[in-house]
Amino acid sequence: MPLQLPPAEPGMREDEVDTPALILDLDAFEANLDTMAQRLAPTGARLRAHAKTHKSAVIARLQMERGAIGQCVQKVGEAEALARAGIDDLLVSNEVIAPQKLARLAALSRIARIAVCADDSAALPALEAAAEAAGIRLSVLVEIEVGAKRCGLEPGAPAGELAARIASSKHLSFGGLQAYFGSAQHKRQPEERRLAIAYAGTCVERTLDDLRRRGLHCPIVGGGGTGTFALEAASGLWTEIQAGSYIFMDADYARNVEPPPFRHALFVLAQVMSAPTGSGRAVVDAGHKAAPTDSGYPQVFERPELAYVGASDEHGVLEARDGPLPVLGEKLRLIPGHCDPTVDRYDWYVGVRKGRVECLWPVTARGLMV
Amino acid sequence: MPLQLPPAEPGMREDEVDTPALILDLDAFEANLDTMAQRLAPTGARLRAHAKTHKSAVIARLQMERGAIGQCVQKVGEAEALARAGIDDLLVSNEVIAPQKLARLAALSRIARIAVCADDSAALPALEAAAEAAGIRLSVLVEIEVGAKRCGLEPGAPAGELAARIASSKHLSFGGLQAYFGSAQHKRQPEERRLAIAYAGTCVERTLDDLRRRGLHCPIVGGGGTGTFALEAASGLWTEIQAGSYIFMDADYARNVEPPPFRHALFVLAQVMSAPTGSGRAVVDAGHKAAPTDSGYPQVFERPELAYVGASDEHGVLEARDGPLPVLGEKLRLIPGHCDPTVDRYDWYVGVRKGRVECLWPVTARGLMV
Repeated sequence: MPLQLPPAEPGMREDEVDTPALILDLDAFEANLDTMAQRLAPTGARLRAHAKTHKSAVIARLQMERGAIGQCVQKVGEAEALARAGIDDLLVSNEVIAPQKLARLAALSRIARIAVCADDSAALPALEAAAEAAGIRLSVLVEIEVGAKRCGLEPGAPAGELAARIASSKHLSFGGLQAYFGSAQHKRQPEERRLAIAYAGTCVERTLDDLRRRGLHCPIVGGGGTGTFALEAASGLWTEIQAGSYIFMDADYARNVEPPPFRHALFVLAQVMSAPTGSGRAVVDAGHKAAPTDSGYPQVFERPELAYVGASDEHGVLEARDGPLPVLGEKLRLIPGHCDPTVDRYDWYVGVRKGRVECLWPVTARGLMV
Repeated sequence: MPLQLPPAEPGMREDEVDTPALILDLDAFEANLDTMAQRLAPTGARLRAHAKTHKSAVIARLQMERGAIGQCVQKVGEAEALARAGIDDLLVSNEVIAPQKLARLAALSRIARIAVCADDSAALPALEAAAEAAGIRLSVLVEIEVGAKRCGLEPGAPAGELAARIASSKHLSFGGLQAYFGSAQHKRQPEERRLAIAYAGTCVERTLDDLRRRGLHCPIVGGGGTGTFALEAASGLWTEIQAGSYIFMDADYARNVEPPPFRHALFVLAQVMSAPTGSGRAVVDAGHKAAPTDSGYPQVFERPELAYVGASDEHGVLEARDGPLPVLGEKLRLIPGHCDPTVDRYDWYVGVRKGRVECLWPVTARGLMV
């Protein structure tokens, strides 16, 4: 909410950027954009990139220039921020329940193509009321449980029944299936990921069979993330891939065996603020408020001898496994443990190429809670 | 950065507030303010409450109306936000290294009493240069290591030597000692906390002895947090108590045996967005972006039969140990695992009394990184 100026200016050297700052390595980022476009091109699947990762209208546009057909968002506030910035095809890949949120979402249909998920017939009256009040027909995807044990109703007949109710509604249209297996993304072994997505595929097939029996056309099957997208894309079942993190690659994805084919492009630049003599540690100004630890501690980029071993609100403690500790004032790139919540802490991306600040991009939907 | 309206209006019932929202239970909060004031009154120690917890000029003022002599902050951005809102006695209880940050801090000395910490003589030239450029004398506290193994130099002679260098500087003044034992706050057993603060006390005494030998007056000994403040206050050594979380009481502090004498006053209001039939779970719209998990998952307030068992970006999974699950659309109060990073996610406090929204307070320094 407070006005926060960018921590850098174009032309600065990276080591002049104030800390902590969110650094986007533009060469690596653009390579990641291209890699995903190339990987998906020979498959039937299209990219609907997940904007909960980047929350940026600029990045959404760069993805769509390379073939993405739209964006996923997780919150109505994200949909508003992107639609207002010109992103015109948005799927809220999530259930929305509150009438005040649905009214905002329906209103957005005037400026963008909007769809949302449901997994419960009890949610339909509010969806219908919002669509009716806005004078639109709202596209609703049925989310099915494919192994993630989060949202989603039973595949097969229960999902088909909900789809039929949506299709028969005056104000809703059946938009397809949402079939995302979140926890499969981070299964460490490739064989575990393969089995998980094979199972998800059986859930999708069973539901498509049921829809066919009901004579319902299924325009979209959405799912897939950075850890498994190649499996969904190759299956012939999923039509839209919802990967988000591929543009940045965080430390957690890098821990997968046979990790996804992307480069680390997102960093938290931190400065050593304390290096007490003889203590065996150095303390940087990026703790868990600057680099959330829900998926583990950050790693120090290209300094394998340094370990980030403890985080408090505004401090990160480094130890040296081998070799010297960094000195007071030194700046280091940290690879975030998890890119999504890390980006959501910052107002600005500092885009860097070959050691110089090239651009400053706002995190358009930063911190939008509702 | 984007304009984010409050998720509520005064007069609304709490169950009408949009979710996720940061709820402040005003009765519990005011009781906590009073309890701390009463507990410290008979001791020699004064409260310099830590604003990294609340980031709010309104709350800072309420603390100062009840006897707090000022505020601690952890970032220069926090100091700016509070000073500009009229909070006129601020200690940055942290090391500040970057010249651009020090210039901003020195400039603030025109509108507030400002002090900052140092733990390294290598940091002094930048401090001196900033003070000289601003034409002020900057008060610098020496941070000593008292067991937390974070920042802070060796107590005794090394600390005394740094104090002497500060005192002899043309542009700095020796402001006292910073002696905060962060990790002691969360030691579960009272005896562990007692031993930790007893040890910290020996570090303070040793340093005060050294300062006395050097003929240096030590105006402030600062430290103490919500878990141990009674020990520091009773010691006769600490003059300023830097507790922050006491106003809110989070789930982590409640796990201490003999927990601090405060009531849960801060909540994340969340709504059930999915409750798949037969799944044994309900999913709320508050994941780790809405309630950070660095100190464990949130707890469901006054619903001991419900357990929050998993967090992803925008989803929290609840299971029922005993009794029914909440239904689709139901709103629940979550006690955050850790109040400080949770507050920093929100633009607004929604102040509630007896089930009605009474006030909306901005999180003045929300997300200020530098």
